[in-house]
Amino acid sequence: MTESGANEGQKRRAAESAVAAVEDGTVVGLGTGSTAAAAIRALGRRVADGLDVRGVPTSHAARRVARDAGVPLTTLADATPDVAIDGADQVADGDLLKGGGAAHTREKVVDTAADRFLVVVDASKRVDVLDAPVPLEVLADAAPVVEDRVGDLGGTPELRAAERKDGPVVTDNGNLVVDADLGRIDDPEALAASLSALPGVVEHGLFVGVAYEIHVGTDEGVEVLEP
Amino acid sequence: MTESGANEGQKRRAAESAVAAVEDGTVVGLGTGSTAAAAIRALGRRVADGLDVRGVPTSHAARRVARDAGVPLTTLADATPDVAIDGADQVADGDLLKGGGAAHTREKVVDTAADRFLVVVDASKRVDVLDAPVPLEVLADAAPVVEDRVGDLGGTPELRAAERKDGPVVTDNGNLVVDADLGRIDDPEALAASLSALPGVVEHGLFVGVAYEIHVGTDEGVEVLEP
Repeated sequence: MTESGANEGQKRRAAESAVAAVEDGTVVGLGTGSTAAAAIRALGRRVADGLDVRGVPTSHAARRVARDAGVPLTTLADATPDVAIDGADQVADGDLLKGGGAAHTREKVVDTAADRFLVVVDASKRVDVLDAPVPLEVLADAAPVVEDRVGDLGGTPELRAAERKDGPVVTDNGNLVVDADLGRIDDPEALAASLSALPGVVEHGLFVGVAYEIHVGTDEGVEVLEP
Repeated sequence: MTESGANEGQKRRAAESAVAAVEDGTVVGLGTGSTAAAAIRALGRRVADGLDVRGVPTSHAARRVARDAGVPLTTLADATPDVAIDGADQVADGDLLKGGGAAHTREKVVDTAADRFLVVVDASKRVDVLDAPVPLEVLADAAPVVEDRVGDLGGTPELRAAERKDGPVVTDNGNLVVDADLGRIDDPEALAASLSALPGVVEHGLFVGVAYEIHVGTDEGVEVLEP
């Protein structure tokens, strides 16, 4: 989840395009990751100019960015988002692969709770077919069982290791992450159903049929896809 | 989860019937609830007679019963169950409704990891159609969103309240429970898929197509159903 720097302009343009759609007096789901963080900072600039919004963060990281950017916060217990703005690791045909930042469970809860979910990505995230490993947030006890089941589905599982602590990554929810390499994902809807049904899987990183608009930042401007 | 006492004989007969199928040198998934506890105690008696098994508990409660009964324990990280023995709140056509004890998530992980899942119930648990509320283990943050989605599915959600602590029941995994009253469940497989797909739902209490045998204790003996 390090920022490359190379696509910062694209990310910022995508973020500002989505944030321009936020209306006064609304509740905004705040995504996790570098492009979503750019959106939170853009939202903070609008708040400084007088926009009245409250944000629902999808992670500890998003909460911290929002606090620094001056975006007032609330919770899902107290408010339902009108709009959510979040990034993606891959986008194809309107479907998304997320979870590189291990925040996909809360992201899916917040993003799908919103009336409109706006995706913000740089151009490198667009692919013809989703084919990156699918992050699975799993109960710690169940990780070995889930790894076996990923094998049954023809995939290769890998328990995600942490770099700044010993052992595996632990999510904001206290669970582990298994990255399931399943090759080309020709039928995201069917795979999503199979992964949702696996005992021990809290949530997977496939977001199928939930994006309202996809704002793709380019070197020239922003392309808005409506799936 | 209080024991009625009225069906103790039926529960014990079902439990002993299933435990009789456990072979020497195997790993046994240990269910949660009064009938599963009867099975763990029956297994403990076989261990005292020389049976060599190791148990994988599905909950803090099951671990405690097993320790008291003298059943050696292991974990899913170290062993895969050959057989699992667990109860159910309702049984219809080989499908189960579980989760009255809020342990259904780990139960599903352990029960479905086993080569053979033996269900043990008293006769009162057999119904023509599953129709009890479906327990949903949910992330605390997501509970309001999940309750909305249960309403979208035509159901009535109720956050399960604790009786011996203030506020809601918290599961062994640190999550909450929403009991989703969806009336008659005419298509358990379709409902299971819908509930699995809900963001924020860690696991639901429908167990579809996973029982190998169902041992039903009666006043006369045991009836073994093979779905």
